[in-house]
Amino acid sequence: MHIVFEPDGKTIEIEKGKTILDAADKADIDIKSDCGGKGTCGKCIIKIEEGHQSISPLISEEKDSLCKEEIEEGYRYACAAKIQNPGTEVTVSIPSRSRRDKQVILEEGLHVDIELDPQIHKYQIKPEKPSLKDDLSDYERLQKILKQEYGLEVDDIAVNTLRKLPKKLRNDLGRFKEKFTVTLNKNKIIKIEDSHQEKYYGIAIDIGTTTVVAYLVDMTTGEIIDIASEMNPQMRYGEDVMTRVTTTFSEENGMNKMQDTIIKGVNRLISELSEDNNIDKKDILEVTAVGNTGMHHIFAGIHPEFISKSPYVQGIRDAVNLTPADAGVEIYEDGNIHILPTVSGWMGADTIGCLLTTTPYKQDPIQLMIDVGTNGEIVLGNKDRMIGASCAAGPALEGAHMKYGMRAAPGAIQYINLNEELEPQLDVIGDQPPKGICGSGIIDAIAELVRTGIINKDGTYNKNAETDRLRETESGLEYVLAYKSEYNSKHDVTLTNQDIREVQLAKGAISAGAHILMDELGIDKPDEIMLAGAFGNYIDKISALTIGLFPEVGIDDIKMAGNAAGVGARLALIDKNKRQKARELPTQIKYYRLATHEDFDMEFARAQYFPHMEMDKYPNYEKIQELRRCR
Amino acid sequence: MHIVFEPDGKTIEIEKGKTILDAADKADIDIKSDCGGKGTCGKCIIKIEEGHQSISPLISEEKDSLCKEEIEEGYRYACAAKIQNPGTEVTVSIPSRSRRDKQVILEEGLHVDIELDPQIHKYQIKPEKPSLKDDLSDYERLQKILKQEYGLEVDDIAVNTLRKLPKKLRNDLGRFKEKFTVTLNKNKIIKIEDSHQEKYYGIAIDIGTTTVVAYLVDMTTGEIIDIASEMNPQMRYGEDVMTRVTTTFSEENGMNKMQDTIIKGVNRLISELSEDNNIDKKDILEVTAVGNTGMHHIFAGIHPEFISKSPYVQGIRDAVNLTPADAGVEIYEDGNIHILPTVSGWMGADTIGCLLTTTPYKQDPIQLMIDVGTNGEIVLGNKDRMIGASCAAGPALEGAHMKYGMRAAPGAIQYINLNEELEPQLDVIGDQPPKGICGSGIIDAIAELVRTGIINKDGTYNKNAETDRLRETESGLEYVLAYKSEYNSKHDVTLTNQDIREVQLAKGAISAGAHILMDELGIDKPDEIMLAGAFGNYIDKISALTIGLFPEVGIDDIKMAGNAAGVGARLALIDKNKRQKARELPTQIKYYRLATHEDFDMEFARAQYFPHMEMDKYPNYEKIQELRRCR
Repeated sequence: MHIVFEPDGKTIEIEKGKTILDAADKADIDIKSDCGGKGTCGKCIIKIEEGHQSISPLISEEKDSLCKEEIEEGYRYACAAKIQNPGTEVTVSIPSRSRRDKQVILEEGLHVDIELDPQIHKYQIKPEKPSLKDDLSDYERLQKILKQEYGLEVDDIAVNTLRKLPKKLRNDLGRFKEKFTVTLNKNKIIKIEDSHQEKYYGIAIDIGTTTVVAYLVDMTTGEIIDIASEMNPQMRYGEDVMTRVTTTFSEENGMNKMQDTIIKGVNRLISELSEDNNIDKKDILEVTAVGNTGMHHIFAGIHPEFISKSPYVQGIRDAVNLTPADAGVEIYEDGNIHILPTVSGWMGADTIGCLLTTTPYKQDPIQLMIDVGTNGEIVLGNKDRMIGASCAAGPALEGAHMKYGMRAAPGAIQYINLNEELEPQLDVIGDQPPKGICGSGIIDAIAELVRTGIINKDGTYNKNAETDRLRETESGLEYVLAYKSEYNSKHDVTLTNQDIREVQLAKGAISAGAHILMDELGIDKPDEIMLAGAFGNYIDKISALTIGLFPEVGIDDIKMAGNAAGVGARLALIDKNKRQKARELPTQIKYYRLATHEDFDMEFARAQYFPHMEMDKYPNYEKIQELRRCR
Repeated sequence: MHIVFEPDGKTIEIEKGKTILDAADKADIDIKSDCGGKGTCGKCIIKIEEGHQSISPLISEEKDSLCKEEIEEGYRYACAAKIQNPGTEVTVSIPSRSRRDKQVILEEGLHVDIELDPQIHKYQIKPEKPSLKDDLSDYERLQKILKQEYGLEVDDIAVNTLRKLPKKLRNDLGRFKEKFTVTLNKNKIIKIEDSHQEKYYGIAIDIGTTTVVAYLVDMTTGEIIDIASEMNPQMRYGEDVMTRVTTTFSEENGMNKMQDTIIKGVNRLISELSEDNNIDKKDILEVTAVGNTGMHHIFAGIHPEFISKSPYVQGIRDAVNLTPADAGVEIYEDGNIHILPTVSGWMGADTIGCLLTTTPYKQDPIQLMIDVGTNGEIVLGNKDRMIGASCAAGPALEGAHMKYGMRAAPGAIQYINLNEELEPQLDVIGDQPPKGICGSGIIDAIAELVRTGIINKDGTYNKNAETDRLRETESGLEYVLAYKSEYNSKHDVTLTNQDIREVQLAKGAISAGAHILMDELGIDKPDEIMLAGAFGNYIDKISALTIGLFPEVGIDDIKMAGNAAGVGARLALIDKNKRQKARELPTQIKYYRLATHEDFDMEFARAQYFPHMEMDKYPNYEKIQELRRCR
């Protein structure tokens, strides 16, 4: 019987009597389970999306532990839910909090339908051998057979391939060989090999401001073979895009330094992937890359200075193709480096990658796509119309600029509940004493403190709250999430009133952006929300709704798209139609500049409130609160 | 009044009373004149082709010196022929023998009609400046205005231009400039400059086996500004193409060495032209190049091994475009290196260049185009049909492999007459004692010895001839062209029976090739003969007909096309339609391989005879002899 796991998109076969935990194990999906599948730890909570009738009934531990709303929504313990009546497919979604935390850098994305139709393609040919009576030249001989056999209009040949062509077609004795594999990039011959050299590879790269992720793809199947990632090595020139762009023109030789740094990083990832998977770099024929406009320009070597200065225009909007030599990227010499298009100076190829993944442009429901990061990009729309904006959320949601903020690394508090005694229950990455708190933990903490009235609607602490964890410091009130005495840790971990202020600003920017776009489109709420980016994939949806991070929609209408930008780069790698679509998107999205929008100041001020200013516009808030409470 | 000089194609204005010698001087054409225009030396012989009625009558010196046939044909002394009755245009042709011998390397060609329509073109634009309301990116802004103003569909931008684009469009303060000059190569932006930078340059290069000639062209007028040339520096790897091609694969690193050598040579010529004319190399936007298939492949870096081995196919027939970086050629970084197409392994881009110049493909008369060299290429046909062959003439006609053979350099006997006493009258380059004999001198010498019966029809010396210049040596008979005692020179200069044999083989190859093509086309004689190449330009037409070098046509139907290959490279540089025509020609010429042609052995044997085997097929031979005799 089929089990489909979302958002991974993996499908596996499993027999009657096995549990969802067994199935996840078989599918190589790591679900938390501290009790070893005995149904006692309650960590392996999953949600049965479809096919309830095939699954065994709840066990007593589930009935005791899960709350009514959760049970109604289909939440189960993975270890308790067994295949009982094999029937139609079962679809299971795995909440972020139930996953093992090994994968600190997000590398997988939303499951998307894959069309395999790459621009670079291999063909098997057996041309007539040249003779005194048929002395057509080598290149024209290939042109002729590719036309005859495949109807192709070959009109170019890459320089290195041309130079070696006469030798490639002949053996050591100078005899013309029998059969060949010819590789074409569109209508250009880029490689000649002996027959049946069918395997070839591509690499999709997401150049994030913080993290660079590279996906090694088998171009004959479209499948991801391996993933490698590293911190963006440009980090030493500044954490955010603006600082780095400024470095390119304010420091001596800044542009070259910045460009070299990222290219070396990309080459390290390519080397790692080729070595780990025993693949010759000469068989890597194409790289597709996405990144925000700053990263995009620096990687391509295009001066990015003027995206940082009014009116913030980029050097090029369209996709850029470079030779590996021009790009400095170490793959097959006649391969291609394809950098996806950008929308504006502050909406880049990463957003285009996200949209290829979340595909609002071909659907009826109106989608609000939010790529959460230091700069949050928002696109709202459907197949009829799309509008977008970029909002300066700041780094708070990623754990930066907070007193105990940290990246999602071992020691970070990643999820928090307040129990009935208002005592925090922490989930720390790596089962260590807590050292700090990462983005998803911050959202959880504020959500719980808002829910329990410890934080007021305006973001200040409620001095009268029934908790002894609130304490006064020189810079104001702070809430102690973890006393060092509780965990034998090196210091307390607290959430200060300034921390809340930072989150308010971030939430305010994203929420105001979303509301302005909704007003522009003339809608009250979107039909679905797609969260892209690492942070988006790990936050708790209910917590995000609790603090009013985005407009209120049904919980199931909030979808985690994972590293949608990286997935989009992969789609452009393996499907030339999606690559073409990517080139059309920038002209189809109307970009709004929030900073100069007439409504921005007011919307931004309103959006500071937790959860919202006018609560009567959020009729489902109470129901969502119930789900949060029963955790 | 207009005077047109052929084959130079120069037209000048001259007033009544001035001589043709004055006119030539004004046109910068150097005509021999040892007496200073007094009408006594008889060296400034020219031919009035049209407009006799405007010219003064013959003076007594002309009547005494010129023979009847010459006078009938319109030959005059340039210093004696005055403009007397200004009327219609006068056309004057200057025989090779009347030109000063400064120009040892042939750099000028046939006068051809020039269309100026280069593929690389400059446009003046004044785009709207970007603003917050009009924040289109830089590249798309240029695309838009070029579409609006010129209807152009720009679809690409060269990598270096893209990288600098944002800075090029703005001043030091970051302000968008007013007006620009944008350069396009087809639909690709390759350069951005401030407004009204209209001048740009191109270089057409003829990579001959012996000589490399580079023409610096003003792309806004199509005119040649300057010419530079040097011996092909690959000479050290062998004098002929076959030896050099063999070097590429038989010597270690042979290909790289050969390629480097020619590229360095080309770069030296480019430097020389840019320095001498005070032109920045960055303003040289394109190079077009022609050469035989071997030179072509080596220059482009394509392994040429298999053009030297049966079935002798080239790597590519079509034109090749390389970036300056790929080609290693030092011009503007986003410029283009265009190498014209080849016909076969032994009919190269040089022949295509010749045909662009002699244009048989658009005319009714059937043209026999012969590019005379170590490998002679022959193309026969008209607009309906063209066929071609390559014949291994050997180096004899260029003065190599002869006992006293030498290149056309000071000390070389370049023209010879036998006077009525059968004593040789020599014309030596540089007015020096004779050191040897060059190609045109060899043809003259044999023609005169054939005419006077000193050489028999079968190429042997006639022992009974009435001359005491024939002498016996260990290796057979030889004829003394110059005793050292006569000229106070270091040695005698002679023509051996082996020398005659070499010329017989060369003449045999060319003549047999021409006859086979005529048979294939089903004609008895062509309507015109076009002689291309340096040697072709300097030989005496009558001498060539005297020894039967090519089929018998009227003397005026033999035309000197000069360095037609180089002219063709220039045409492809300044006219994109001719460049396109060049790409079509290889598919329109049926190439015959002489070595394996069933008639070749017989034709080759027959063609050894001086002047021909069956004299009844050459009805005008006697008349031609008269012209020769009266010299």
